Amino acid sequence: MKLTEEQLKTFDELGYLYLPGCFNAEEVARLKAAAQDVFSEQREEIWREKNGVPRTAFACHKYNQTCNALVGDHRLVEPLEQLFGEQVYVHQFKINAKAAFTGEVWQWHQDFPTWHKDDGMPEPRAMNIAIFLDDVMPINGPLMIVPKSHKHGALQSSHDQQTTSYPLWTLDNDTVTKLVENNGIVTPTGKAGGVLMFHANIVHGSAGNITPYPRRIVYLTLSALSNAITNPTRPEFIAHTDFTPVTSASDGMDQQCLAALSS
Amino acid sequence: MKLTEEQLKTFDELGYLYLPGCFNAEEVARLKAAAQDVFSEQREEIWREKNGVPRTAFACHKYNQTCNALVGDHRLVEPLEQLFGEQVYVHQFKINAKAAFTGEVWQWHQDFPTWHKDDGMPEPRAMNIAIFLDDVMPINGPLMIVPKSHKHGALQSSHDQQTTSYPLWTLDNDTVTKLVENNGIVTPTGKAGGVLMFHANIVHGSAGNITPYPRRIVYLTLSALSNAITNPTRPEFIAHTDFTPVTSASDGMDQQCLAALSS
Repeated sequence: MKLTEEQLKTFDELGYLYLPGCFNAEEVARLKAAAQDVFSEQREEIWREKNGVPRTAFACHKYNQTCNALVGDHRLVEPLEQLFGEQVYVHQFKINAKAAFTGEVWQWHQDFPTWHKDDGMPEPRAMNIAIFLDDVMPINGPLMIVPKSHKHGALQSSHDQQTTSYPLWTLDNDTVTKLVENNGIVTPTGKAGGVLMFHANIVHGSAGNITPYPRRIVYLTLSALSNAITNPTRPEFIAHTDFTPVTSASDGMDQQCLAALSS
Repeated sequence: MKLTEEQLKTFDELGYLYLPGCFNAEEVARLKAAAQDVFSEQREEIWREKNGVPRTAFACHKYNQTCNALVGDHRLVEPLEQLFGEQVYVHQFKINAKAAFTGEVWQWHQDFPTWHKDDGMPEPRAMNIAIFLDDVMPINGPLMIVPKSHKHGALQSSHDQQTTSYPLWTLDNDTVTKLVENNGIVTPTGKAGGVLMFHANIVHGSAGNITPYPRRIVYLTLSALSNAITNPTRPEFIAHTDFTPVTSASDGMDQQCLAALSS
């Protein structure tokens, strides 16, 4: 699945691209069932909120078949190959739960500084591409993005190990305030099955979720093959060191996705 | 300022009423300056988030002239006199800060159970009427309301003294889930100067605010005179025991407000 010229331009300008309806209801149902299986396990790869509710399931593509099948999906792989102009490998695979009632905040951050400082990733030639497993609404902790913030490169960040259970290199309030003053905040919302891709240096975060609506998202982080990490300090299940290129596989959903892309 | 028959009907049916543009820009500016003065003080009436940032300033109408002038405002007093069919007194006056970046959650609750259990208020013949001091947006922790939930009366609640710095009688997740399944969640949003009134038994809450946009709201809680509290256990600045009826005063803003009301 290739992005159009216009989509490439939008991505370059804004730093993100939201593609509604890329996965159909049946696929979403399969992925939700997989997420439920994954989150019911007791494993070290599943990180929890401070109250014990699952927050993130890392590397579940290693032990869950449905998740594994998603890794090579052409709707996720090809746009990133296109952007990087080369093959990609899996840097990280995770499901973020943002559980109903208890899903906690993700503080304002860029992804690349964490990948760079904690994993030794050379350049921001990697990216998150996300699949919405639930309807993402304004009320259930949608991702908040500061458009165009990726143009500032890697901003100064500090290591937040206090706010949540997940250590993260986060931005200070003054930096976020200035960026937001210039370009505001967008919250790409939409039905389950939508796909959201965003630049490694885009500034983003999300508030807690107090609603009865869970907001599960699968994040596939793909890196350009030439951008393999050099100094991983985090567990292998968080920063993979298998640099085998991903083989893109079509599953016959092309028509649906192309329709979404041309709309 | 009187509510129309249609507004009374809407309030009865849904349990809340949002009146945009009731206070003009100059009034909002005065109130915001007052809020800034209030929150800069070090007083026992100002409760703070766990990180020290102000969360709620109680009873600031006792020491801040602008807040004091607001108490009798006809736009706030007359609708409640109309609904209760009698004069009202001030049960509580506060400014909730929901500070930029750090404003914490208010868990799902009804107001009346706290007033009843902690203050000995006989009946849900009291109500919050709120003035937005900042633009309330989907992203900066707007009040979430479950429409029609007031029809269930006072629901079973338990005393949450852990989640935030402010003890509150909160609802369990199953109860909220069932109510939301039936009637969803609304988030009245709008420009600073809007007024929101909601039934003492409406189920509501709000998520944290991680944006650079503060979301300050003044809450005036007025109770029917015949509904005076009988057994206050909280400090006087949280549950007042001066049952003098409020005298409604017009400040000449009638036309603006009537226009907003009839739109």
